[in-house]
Amino acid sequence: MSTRKIRVAVVGGTGYTGVELLRLLLAHPQVELTAITSRAEAGQRVVDLFPNLRGRTALRFAAPDVALLADSDLVFFATPNGTAMKMAAELLSRQTRIIDLAADFRLRDAALWQQWYGIEHACPELLSEAVYGLPEVNRVQIRNAALVANPGCYPTAVQLGLLPLLSSGTVDFSSLIADSKSGVSGAGRKAEVGFLLSEASENMKAYAVAGHRHLPEIQQGLTAATGHKVGLTFVPHLTPMIRGIHATLYARLTGEPGNLQAMYAEYYRNEPFVDVLEEGAHPETRSVRGANVCRIAVHRPQQGDTVVVLSVIDNLVKGAAGQAVQNMNIMFQFDETLGISQTALLP
Amino acid sequence: MSTRKIRVAVVGGTGYTGVELLRLLLAHPQVELTAITSRAEAGQRVVDLFPNLRGRTALRFAAPDVALLADSDLVFFATPNGTAMKMAAELLSRQTRIIDLAADFRLRDAALWQQWYGIEHACPELLSEAVYGLPEVNRVQIRNAALVANPGCYPTAVQLGLLPLLSSGTVDFSSLIADSKSGVSGAGRKAEVGFLLSEASENMKAYAVAGHRHLPEIQQGLTAATGHKVGLTFVPHLTPMIRGIHATLYARLTGEPGNLQAMYAEYYRNEPFVDVLEEGAHPETRSVRGANVCRIAVHRPQQGDTVVVLSVIDNLVKGAAGQAVQNMNIMFQFDETLGISQTALLP
Amino acid sequence: MSTRKIRVAVVGGTGYTGVELLRLLLAHPQVELTAITSRAEAGQRVVDLFPNLRGRTALRFAAPDVALLADSDLVFFATPNGTAMKMAAELLSRQTRIIDLAADFRLRDAALWQQWYGIEHACPELLSEAVYGLPEVNRVQIRNAALVANPGCYPTAVQLGLLPLLSSGTVDFSSLIADSKSGVSGAGRKAEVGFLLSEASENMKAYAVAGHRHLPEIQQGLTAATGHKVGLTFVPHLTPMIRGIHATLYARLTGEPGNLQAMYAEYYRNEPFVDVLEEGAHPETRSVRGANVCRIAVHRPQQGDTVVVLSVIDNLVKGAAGQAVQNMNIMFQFDETLGISQTALLP
Amino acid sequence: MSTRKIRVAVVGGTGYTGVELLRLLLAHPQVELTAITSRAEAGQRVVDLFPNLRGRTALRFAAPDVALLADSDLVFFATPNGTAMKMAAELLSRQTRIIDLAADFRLRDAALWQQWYGIEHACPELLSEAVYGLPEVNRVQIRNAALVANPGCYPTAVQLGLLPLLSSGTVDFSSLIADSKSGVSGAGRKAEVGFLLSEASENMKAYAVAGHRHLPEIQQGLTAATGHKVGLTFVPHLTPMIRGIHATLYARLTGEPGNLQAMYAEYYRNEPFVDVLEEGAHPETRSVRGANVCRIAVHRPQQGDTVVVLSVIDNLVKGAAGQAVQNMNIMFQFDETLGISQTALLP
Repeated sequence: MSTRKIRVAVVGGTGYTGVELLRLLLAHPQVELTAITSRAEAGQRVVDLFPNLRGRTALRFAAPDVALLADSDLVFFATPNGTAMKMAAELLSRQTRIIDLAADFRLRDAALWQQWYGIEHACPELLSEAVYGLPEVNRVQIRNAALVANPGCYPTAVQLGLLPLLSSGTVDFSSLIADSKSGVSGAGRKAEVGFLLSEASENMKAYAVAGHRHLPEIQQGLTAATGHKVGLTFVPHLTPMIRGIHATLYARLTGEPGNLQAMYAEYYRNEPFVDVLEEGAHPETRSVRGANVCRIAVHRPQQGDTVVVLSVIDNLVKGAAGQAVQNMNIMFQFDETLGISQTALLP
Repeated sequence: MSTRKIRVAVVGGTGYTGVELLRLLLAHPQVELTAITSRAEAGQRVVDLFPNLRGRTALRFAAPDVALLADSDLVFFATPNGTAMKMAAELLSRQTRIIDLAADFRLRDAALWQQWYGIEHACPELLSEAVYGLPEVNRVQIRNAALVANPGCYPTAVQLGLLPLLSSGTVDFSSLIADSKSGVSGAGRKAEVGFLLSEASENMKAYAVAGHRHLPEIQQGLTAATGHKVGLTFVPHLTPMIRGIHATLYARLTGEPGNLQAMYAEYYRNEPFVDVLEEGAHPETRSVRGANVCRIAVHRPQQGDTVVVLSVIDNLVKGAAGQAVQNMNIMFQFDETLGISQTALLP
Repeated sequence: MSTRKIRVAVVGGTGYTGVELLRLLLAHPQVELTAITSRAEAGQRVVDLFPNLRGRTALRFAAPDVALLADSDLVFFATPNGTAMKMAAELLSRQTRIIDLAADFRLRDAALWQQWYGIEHACPELLSEAVYGLPEVNRVQIRNAALVANPGCYPTAVQLGLLPLLSSGTVDFSSLIADSKSGVSGAGRKAEVGFLLSEASENMKAYAVAGHRHLPEIQQGLTAATGHKVGLTFVPHLTPMIRGIHATLYARLTGEPGNLQAMYAEYYRNEPFVDVLEEGAHPETRSVRGANVCRIAVHRPQQGDTVVVLSVIDNLVKGAAGQAVQNMNIMFQFDETLGISQTALLP
Repeated sequence: MSTRKIRVAVVGGTGYTGVELLRLLLAHPQVELTAITSRAEAGQRVVDLFPNLRGRTALRFAAPDVALLADSDLVFFATPNGTAMKMAAELLSRQTRIIDLAADFRLRDAALWQQWYGIEHACPELLSEAVYGLPEVNRVQIRNAALVANPGCYPTAVQLGLLPLLSSGTVDFSSLIADSKSGVSGAGRKAEVGFLLSEASENMKAYAVAGHRHLPEIQQGLTAATGHKVGLTFVPHLTPMIRGIHATLYARLTGEPGNLQAMYAEYYRNEPFVDVLEEGAHPETRSVRGANVCRIAVHRPQQGDTVVVLSVIDNLVKGAAGQAVQNMNIMFQFDETLGISQTALLP
């Protein structure tokens, strides 16, 4: 392990992904946190927004500034979509590596990106250079990447859940279903009526059934990993809890898949952050609260031809900040688990 | 409307279905509540268990006794499975009608019942006489029924959501999926660690993926209503809220179904307790909290061949006590909406 | 009871108090709801904001307009503070009576009002005419009032809890303590980060310890009712639930108060909406969820000289909309319980 | 720091205090966890009860056995009250030190203990030997203690909140009030109806107003620390959240206390786990979720003679397992913060 700490900056640290990144980075033994920026909160102490960090940092939010950021080895973007793409080229040109936790570099097709995100992409030439930061798929490419697109929360849970099964080749790739339930923190720390406790508590609802931005990301990822065009129905649901994603995945068998349990266990045998549960188990989101883990169980009800996969993550950890630190560890050749091996908080 | 009140007794009123029945029956203008029984709580005032009923009733729990119950026009069983079947024959022989909110009379096949419920059925001869109390399907038969099997909570949400689509005939009946999310009150008022707030709050999990008792009930109902054998994958989830079921239903089209929105609106046009939302809508469970309503929306994402139906109910009302009172209204020729037209409590 | 319905309008019906008023008024047998206004939502269907009201009303929000409102017998203001005072004089001059659910007419002293609410009062001359709408104290005056100031939520729970004890005269009036816990709906339906589920769930905190606007209202009310100057420490807390206020009240005895339990029972013997629990009981907020009731228990721990009173209400019902309808019933000589005798929803 | 790990056993690790202890001990660099016992779960894998610990430990629950336990340097008792007192003498005689997280050794007076806990004390002779494990008060004595009585959760929050103020001597010691709110995990992991999500969610209630076992513990602690007899009214409340205690403390001034803010800051200046917030602040329980911290703010509303202190902890960490590890660190001369410096999980 290198003994020199790397210099790290965080752009846009006022959201939930930001505070979670700070929680992890401030305790990471190889990281020196040099700056955290927020245009709106510039000058404010970080701990005034996030009292859980009291005693951990004296940092204040700084105004975003490329020169400031370029002084770091690595910049995390924990910003709204459309921000990182404006600063990426200059930072890269100054040898500062980037992990973008937003969606700017997740899709390889600029036209598709514009279609789903509603704005023209500012640097389409970087899309092919960006590495999709799902370590279980792209670990080798991440190692040398200058620009990592950290996966979305739903896409992490859904892809990790489906990959072993799809790799078996015995499913109907055209009729996959991902019924996904997310805690409210997935909507971010923004003042919107729909996410008030009085609205979102004691309530369950689907949203964006007509089409959600994570759909093309999942399709692209599964297609890239399996070589098959993928037809997916993706229905996200707002669940009355703060953290957690539970993806319930359905696939139709087209042949005999063999021992599904063994297939899953083998597929993730060496993965530090994917945990395949025993046969018949039902993973709970609370078992990963605050932890950088995806827990998965595979079922074949009544030995029929529908396979059901249950996949849970903490949307802010393995679905965002934790996976970003995992990518950082890979990029800088630290132990991949360094600083992200906290045990989930239960109860 | 008849002006004589009917005499009604409730067997086993100490659970959530029981208290909800009491809330509705105590305010029902045509009901005189004569007795409520509970072996465990006999002698105890009802309001000591359920303080929300203070000032509404002076009743005390009585020990269950057929003679006492037979003095009523109608007996509701809000008991665990396996209780009603022991008293039904005698009550019926004394001209007391029955609505069973448990599962004793839901399946028509005694062998199937035994397979799923693990006990031998005590009166299989009554199974063919019992009417499945889903008014939207069996209103006419309910009117004259002596014995009504009140549907389960999941089966109500799932069947009401799928029926219009299945009746179109243009779906693959063999690969239906019902991804269902229920509030914790569905587990009843029993002391089990898994349903403690500290366990079930801030958590989402599937359960009984291998097979849940509501599966054969749904299959029987859909088959009876459509004439097709139905293959269904049913995955229930425990959701961190008290009340509410959200069923997310997936069906594969085998032909062009026509205008789905119009089909659903037409199917339920005259139904007082099924509300088809506008195109593109997403029903919320809180919109039916405390109300005897099922709200439904139908989607066809990206005009593909998977139809997604969203169906929400309050598991304790349209999924249990409210539907039971609706059945009572039909059986005794009251206005079907009498006493169950409360507006949902929001927020 | 009069058989003519009264014509009622609601100004500002887009908040939680508004939707709760609508729930109650739409089911009230003596009310014809003529208009509901909202500048921001003018033209929008009410049911699009509040899906629980689907099937109950075809109303759309109208722009606020005095002429429109003056066409009613009664106008409810469910608006932010500072709105009613601008329209009150004109409405009153047109013989339209008013119930203001905001704070504009709660304090009798215009200077004090300005000090706590930060704006100059628009019609101080009406303050002495307004009747403070706590029926248990001012029932007679409410009957003939043209302008009723509906009490705040905390003030309702705190005053009803303390009044019997203070009327005994054996407490130290200078050192009362009201430790009060409120559900998040008390903060209203406004987009603020602090009330997001992700912020307010799984969290407990006090706020406004330095001074809260309900403090002078409570002091004024207790002083008016008892003739004693009252010293009160009032600490509100934000509690992770939607509805409910739990006030825990502490008073120091200065003499022997006699039988506290009997005193409380007697004080509220004829009150339809105050329920004194048995000795040793602990009222729960859920026992009043959705109901127009205040439940109270009085304790004297270890027979010491500190009395502890527990007082719970639903902040949106007895603490707002329900009490407003109760006031309406009194003003128009309907049965006081008409339309507000719903049983609380439990669980 | 010693480099030899100490051998540690946990008795009764199936409750919430137990799993929290395991979370902390399994990550503690100086601890070798040798055994965890549970009579009921003997033979069962720990991870089957607590899936958050998957991948952290291969331990199975063992039957409790003194010989097994005596093989350790330290035994934690995370058992119901009345268990530790039966094994303590023998363990101590074998040079195994003890930290009891239950109440067996918290009160110094065996008669008082019996009065509140309802059973005769099994080893009253050890009561005077036991050190009350509140490090901020008894750090020196803890260092050499063989037997540490880990404080209760409420007592930790209340005592840390009141100590600086009481030490000033300018308050009425006879009329202290501790209005305390606790998350449901404080009730433990036991199957009781009252703590079901369906009962405890969306609800607030006081309990045990007549007298709670933590009252004599707090009085004893405050009296020991200040030399004054203390009169305290203690009202605990069940709050709809999993973790957290919020104590709102009221004291009447009898003289001019000077600068309260400075007094608190100074009192805890060198304490690693007590954080005094800035003037005017309101600590939130979520700011300490999962962290071994007590955050405190002191207020004097309207400069009157009532002081309000707000004190928050995580009941399972600084209120139980975290404080126990802190005591262990002191007893074995590790850095006091070792293994318990995790940042709180927010949101």
